[in-house]
Amino acid sequence: MHGVIARICPEARVIDLGHGVQPQDVAGGGRRLARALPYVPAGVHLAVVDPGVGGPRRAVALRAGDRLLVGPDNGLLMAAAERFGGVDEAVDVSASPWRLEPVSATFHGRDVFAPVAARLAAGAALADGGERIDPATLVRLRAPRPRRQGAGVVAHAVEIDGFGNVVMDAALADLAGARRARIGVGGRRPRGAFPGGPARAPTATVARTFGDVPAGELVLYEDSGGSLALALNGGSAAAALGVRAGAELSLEPA
Amino acid sequence: MHGVIARICPEARVIDLGHGVQPQDVAGGGRRLARALPYVPAGVHLAVVDPGVGGPRRAVALRAGDRLLVGPDNGLLMAAAERFGGVDEAVDVSASPWRLEPVSATFHGRDVFAPVAARLAAGAALADGGERIDPATLVRLRAPRPRRQGAGVVAHAVEIDGFGNVVMDAALADLAGARRARIGVGGRRPRGAFPGGPARAPTATVARTFGDVPAGELVLYEDSGGSLALALNGGSAAAALGVRAGAELSLEPA
Amino acid sequence: MHGVIARICPEARVIDLGHGVQPQDVAGGGRRLARALPYVPAGVHLAVVDPGVGGPRRAVALRAGDRLLVGPDNGLLMAAAERFGGVDEAVDVSASPWRLEPVSATFHGRDVFAPVAARLAAGAALADGGERIDPATLVRLRAPRPRRQGAGVVAHAVEIDGFGNVVMDAALADLAGARRARIGVGGRRPRGAFPGGPARAPTATVARTFGDVPAGELVLYEDSGGSLALALNGGSAAAALGVRAGAELSLEPA
Repeated sequence: MHGVIARICPEARVIDLGHGVQPQDVAGGGRRLARALPYVPAGVHLAVVDPGVGGPRRAVALRAGDRLLVGPDNGLLMAAAERFGGVDEAVDVSASPWRLEPVSATFHGRDVFAPVAARLAAGAALADGGERIDPATLVRLRAPRPRRQGAGVVAHAVEIDGFGNVVMDAALADLAGARRARIGVGGRRPRGAFPGGPARAPTATVARTFGDVPAGELVLYEDSGGSLALALNGGSAAAALGVRAGAELSLEPA
Repeated sequence: MHGVIARICPEARVIDLGHGVQPQDVAGGGRRLARALPYVPAGVHLAVVDPGVGGPRRAVALRAGDRLLVGPDNGLLMAAAERFGGVDEAVDVSASPWRLEPVSATFHGRDVFAPVAARLAAGAALADGGERIDPATLVRLRAPRPRRQGAGVVAHAVEIDGFGNVVMDAALADLAGARRARIGVGGRRPRGAFPGGPARAPTATVARTFGDVPAGELVLYEDSGGSLALALNGGSAAAALGVRAGAELSLEPA
Repeated sequence: MHGVIARICPEARVIDLGHGVQPQDVAGGGRRLARALPYVPAGVHLAVVDPGVGGPRRAVALRAGDRLLVGPDNGLLMAAAERFGGVDEAVDVSASPWRLEPVSATFHGRDVFAPVAARLAAGAALADGGERIDPATLVRLRAPRPRRQGAGVVAHAVEIDGFGNVVMDAALADLAGARRARIGVGGRRPRGAFPGGPARAPTATVARTFGDVPAGELVLYEDSGGSLALALNGGSAAAALGVRAGAELSLEPA
């Protein structure tokens, strides 16, 4: 994809925002994109998490404020678009005149998205990239939502970062000022030698950062994207508790 | 290596084509290089998969058409050279005047290949990089070849990509129009709950892309480099079937 | 971080030196940085291995010779500074006027280090980045040191590279000319079918490079940074012997 861009628009500066999204994790990829873009200069933003490549899903290019977004129409781009005021203009580039021919069935990153992004970076008009479509027809992800449970909250692991920190779809405010919370994963009590003893669910301290708790203990904090997150100081919370992306976590004030 | 290049040729644009080749997998690295280069602007292409570093293997710089290739003389560069019409000119750069001194015994990427590539990128003549050698003396890999077996084919896993898709040294045409094939790995039946039942070898559907089969089923398809490949929709075929690079796979029309 | 730098100093060329440091391995990250920088053009060098992020540890920017170093004050930058003659000037940038506001508690790479590095790259004066501090107050790592044991040496695994090679805090000279050495890990004999037989500790041959020993055998050599290292030709010494960063290894002439 870098090569394709360099051939079409040699003057484009390409910044890799990350290669660590788990395969097929469209929602996680969309969140990462949305969180990163406010820190990145306005430009053409290309993202690919694309389990439906080669199938009926459309390839799209969107304008949201001063940003151009290119990728599959599977919801991946929508959280980022919302950060910039929503989709102002949308084009179906599945059959774009800018595609590389022949188009492979499984690598649209190279054959569709990269050449479309490069043409846009070189100054081509979005409307020339394909058929204009109604933004209301774009696919949106339906994510589970956190819910109240007694004095606590049931949230979901929306991302496991490279350190094993667990980012959730809840906010610090959902803990309603509690200073400690008991953690359940997927309706069960995680095993492990955590404070509270092996026979009980582990508890985490609510704090600002990892080092606010002793090494080996769990901490609940507001992460750098504003979400509630769970970490293990000096280790991987995800590995210790057996949490995967998508898992349900219950947080009960303790 | 990036630093060495930036010191010698600050104006060079460096594109990383990938860092995911498995250690010692010279053939796999060579295939990736050959598949990527047609999509990359003409330039100096540096590749290192080099288990023989520091030993008697030569370091070489080659010209093939409008491309310059730099790396170890262990076969790594040859598939790429063939894509551009074969080697037109070859130079042994093992004792190149452009090397960084002292040359380490184990990191020729930094001490030999990067400075040679950077000098070439800065416009130096290939012939000035070392001793001219006969292209016929360059090391070529002898790869196993796929073979017919009854109505099917026995192929080899030449690459496992980041999604666990298995790229083979066969072509879609080798399946002779079959719509399903029974898969054997290394002479045995892979275990697992695949269509066909646990007591039988799993079968894969021949299709265009992953989503042409239900989630959790196997698909045989022509990949973006034109090779026959095996995927598991929504998962890793390599993990599910226990396939490693180099493994023998039998594909029998079913 | 790339995005933040590109917004503040679009003309800066950013070179990624590596993303493979293990979480919390401040010493290993510092060694990698120190080893790489002599090969990289003079500039602003930003490094983050930062388990104490958000806590009382300071954020600092340092000048050492013609290099500027930016990162946490946890010892990470000190080995690199020593390579360039030691710290000439130090500034506490924890409350730098160049920070991005609001500063998150857990991602100072984005909110503190990247904007400080970008301002310096754009030509701002180090002294304007924060409060000048005495270089003698900077945190230094206290590393274990190798020690003599009989005719041999007890060293420590200071880094496991991407191939599973084990870099130690000893030098080839510590083997005093021995041609083979018996390897112990953490006071025990590693198990495995190595030369010497399963009932005895494995032995490694002292040589120049991997290929100087048969495939599957251990080799002790001087690595590309000048350290004593242990490799398994064609495999991973760390995996075969169960060595992790920080482990103690005994090397006894055999």
